[in-house]
Amino acid sequence: MQRAAALVGRRCGPGAPGPWGRRRSSAAAGASALQVRPARGRRERILTPESMNPQVKAVEYAVRGPIVLKAGEIELELQRGIKKPFTEVIRANIGDAQAMGQQPITFLRQVMALCTYPNLLDSPSFPEDAKKRARRILQACGGNSLGSYSASQGVNCIREDVAAYVTRRDGGVPADPDNIYLTTGASDGISTILKILVSGGGKSRTGVLIPIPQYPLYSAVISELDAIQVNYYLDEENCWALDVNELRRAVQEAKDHCNPKVLCIINPGNPTGQVQSRKCIEDVIHFAWEEKLFLLADEVYQDNVYSPDCRFHSFKKVLYEMGPEYSSNVELASFHSTSKGYMGECGYRGGYMEVINLHPEIKGQLVKLLSVRLCPPVSGQAAMDIVVNPPVPGEESYEQFHREKESVLGNLAAKAKLTEDLFNQVPGIHCNPLQGAMYAFPRIFIPGRAVEAAQAHEMAPDMFYCMKLLEETGICVVPGSGFGQREGTYHFRMTILPPVEKLKTVLQKVKDFHMTFLDKYA
Amino acid sequence: MQRAAALVGRRCGPGAPGPWGRRRSSAAAGASALQVRPARGRRERILTPESMNPQVKAVEYAVRGPIVLKAGEIELELQRGIKKPFTEVIRANIGDAQAMGQQPITFLRQVMALCTYPNLLDSPSFPEDAKKRARRILQACGGNSLGSYSASQGVNCIREDVAAYVTRRDGGVPADPDNIYLTTGASDGISTILKILVSGGGKSRTGVLIPIPQYPLYSAVISELDAIQVNYYLDEENCWALDVNELRRAVQEAKDHCNPKVLCIINPGNPTGQVQSRKCIEDVIHFAWEEKLFLLADEVYQDNVYSPDCRFHSFKKVLYEMGPEYSSNVELASFHSTSKGYMGECGYRGGYMEVINLHPEIKGQLVKLLSVRLCPPVSGQAAMDIVVNPPVPGEESYEQFHREKESVLGNLAAKAKLTEDLFNQVPGIHCNPLQGAMYAFPRIFIPGRAVEAAQAHEMAPDMFYCMKLLEETGICVVPGSGFGQREGTYHFRMTILPPVEKLKTVLQKVKDFHMTFLDKYA
Repeated sequence: MQRAAALVGRRCGPGAPGPWGRRRSSAAAGASALQVRPARGRRERILTPESMNPQVKAVEYAVRGPIVLKAGEIELELQRGIKKPFTEVIRANIGDAQAMGQQPITFLRQVMALCTYPNLLDSPSFPEDAKKRARRILQACGGNSLGSYSASQGVNCIREDVAAYVTRRDGGVPADPDNIYLTTGASDGISTILKILVSGGGKSRTGVLIPIPQYPLYSAVISELDAIQVNYYLDEENCWALDVNELRRAVQEAKDHCNPKVLCIINPGNPTGQVQSRKCIEDVIHFAWEEKLFLLADEVYQDNVYSPDCRFHSFKKVLYEMGPEYSSNVELASFHSTSKGYMGECGYRGGYMEVINLHPEIKGQLVKLLSVRLCPPVSGQAAMDIVVNPPVPGEESYEQFHREKESVLGNLAAKAKLTEDLFNQVPGIHCNPLQGAMYAFPRIFIPGRAVEAAQAHEMAPDMFYCMKLLEETGICVVPGSGFGQREGTYHFRMTILPPVEKLKTVLQKVKDFHMTFLDKYA
Repeated sequence: MQRAAALVGRRCGPGAPGPWGRRRSSAAAGASALQVRPARGRRERILTPESMNPQVKAVEYAVRGPIVLKAGEIELELQRGIKKPFTEVIRANIGDAQAMGQQPITFLRQVMALCTYPNLLDSPSFPEDAKKRARRILQACGGNSLGSYSASQGVNCIREDVAAYVTRRDGGVPADPDNIYLTTGASDGISTILKILVSGGGKSRTGVLIPIPQYPLYSAVISELDAIQVNYYLDEENCWALDVNELRRAVQEAKDHCNPKVLCIINPGNPTGQVQSRKCIEDVIHFAWEEKLFLLADEVYQDNVYSPDCRFHSFKKVLYEMGPEYSSNVELASFHSTSKGYMGECGYRGGYMEVINLHPEIKGQLVKLLSVRLCPPVSGQAAMDIVVNPPVPGEESYEQFHREKESVLGNLAAKAKLTEDLFNQVPGIHCNPLQGAMYAFPRIFIPGRAVEAAQAHEMAPDMFYCMKLLEETGICVVPGSGFGQREGTYHFRMTILPPVEKLKTVLQKVKDFHMTFLDKYA
């Protein structure tokens, strides 16, 4: 016990005299301390474009890139009263449903409000089924509050609800809550899994196969992680379908300079809108099995299928139905989100991933990595719960929920068809069917003289086109070069989220702009 | 126009015959396709502890580490009716106020509920000042909805409110909303800035100076980024104060093997609870200026100062008061959060960072990097707004808000004193004053025989101690080895968040455990 007593060092209460204990009570004290320090000149900055992380510098993210900055500038100019040939900027660059006027699903927001301010649980203005959901979520939260951290993997009962949803969706293929990880939107899940997967140096550096065109989260994260991007091209002539022969080509060529280890799939496609056939998914899974690739299935548009002849098939379900040698071997992570579908709750940053056949130790590593950021936003987790556990027939809120859901999805289907049809009436624009998701990615003809003009401005030709479109019409779309496209082809991505009358106006304006553009640079 | 027409490729509507267009309608179709594929044996996994990202593997995060996993196991055992010498696990490992029973600030949750479900704006049950805040936030959101993405840097009016708060806090030192970035908790801001800062290979790899003991987010992110961790030791004998001579030693030694470029400060300290004097902050800023270090000031406990002789001084304010050669030169990022203070809204993952003297191009790079993850949760941004823009005297909700705030902070101050006093009554425990934050980090004497027993279990001695404490009392605290400590010294971190009566019981149990432990291993 003597050694223990020796531990008690010099006590250092606030009044103690140590060099740091004395309190300076005024700014003047600071000033006097400075008098001994010589004046010096302006110092170079430490963090500069030259000294910064080169991987971060290399990141590109077109969906919020230069065209969107320009849109912001134009909005400010309009606010300042500067005259333009239009009165508002229409931000068709991003899949942000509620910003485009889509109303939130009432039931979801009722449950969220009840969770946020539990006094409302006594209010007669809220339906009982919403209260029941809210009570269940709160009971699973520390201190019965959305304000507590959750487990890093997410709130237990919400992971259970996700597993039950996946099981229903996949016609009974079992899902284990232990394989469900709630995330801060799908982007967070995708970048977390990629972060764990990337390793090796030189020719053994991890190669990540991504579709071209792709959603630029993938190329951005690959760049951040200094992994190797391996492109496989989707077949525009065939509705942007994935061709396994093209995958094979990409892997074979990549083996010369990296270790292709991860295959990313976006289905329904972003920006293409393509919905993969069951046969295609089988072929991809077989290929992943054969080539020893870890599968990432970005399935955030799983509720957004419009073509009557298309159906969403989850990679998980197809994997299981292909039999045990696949279902017990192929490593798969699939992603979903609150941001898309019919709820469009982008701001809550909710999402989940399901991992299949992950090495048990890797599951521990994943939880450890997630725990560094503590937990995903608990409000986003609650939103995810309502997405996977909506009102069912017989419940008080079912009818209204169903009506709201069908209205959103019905509108999107109508707008998908309208967009395809109108674009295809314009000479020099070709638009594949929008089978799903919420974007058109039409191919545009850009005349040689316009290509030259773009080069003179040091711009990609489709960036030049989109900038002109923005400046002349106020419509903000993203050039195809931000998603990737075959050399010499040009596209843009436009959301179909504006309300139908506004969308018609947008399409008409694009048409007029395009005709004038062709004339001008003919 | 002929070339334009040629663009229109083979149309590929859902009924088209291409190899991917044909729809397989049943699982059986998949099964038949498999018949041509030979059966193969069990495949090795692609993602294994050997093949995974070694930087991620090296990450440690003690606050949610093995001791917390063990706590979860014990909770399950208690639920299953297994008898223990205690009836509940007390999670004193993490600063999770509401999980420990702290009630949310009513006003904050009222505004959040109104933003979530705007129908409530018509309800007479909500005060007008809360409605005013909610309307202002919603007007600044796309489609007037929390469900839209915000700008990647955060909602404009919330950044303006943060800037106004910082200006008030710092006695008029100006803050520019353009320098404010809303984040997903402080952790997100810290890791984003570090991600931009890290560069170079070999001996020019970026070195990041962190205090020991530290909050393990820092070591974890440094490991993820493959940067070089440079330790500077806080002075336990002097209330865990920061000594610039020790900083100087650390930088000098680091220069042999890396490029020390970043200096991280945690004030008030986590886990130490130390509140830095103004003089200390001046010295640190001068040192950063001299040594060309980018300053990171983690100030999430800025509202948590309890010692009557201590005061929080922000690095920003001191920097400005030191005169233009500092204020126009030293690069600084400071961080705040909704999770700590008196509101304890951890689950919303709200936070902000303010950057000073950042290179203009780096600001663009930062926005680009943030835009890849789209935006911080908008609900967390709204929570941050209420933290920086609470009710003021004269407003309807002021009195209740003020009462709730003072109650939380008064309780924490009382518990800080209680904890220090009770720990210091225990032979073999020495606890510095808890000047701020929400943790005690007492030094514990571990007898030689206990150290040997720990070694036999391949555990750090303080991990062994904390495991025994957990197993015998149900109290979950984090070993000092998870935060770093001088070789041969042992500590643990315990939150002071349990309600006062429970905290007294906890402290008594720790005392009893400690005495028995000393006896047993004497």
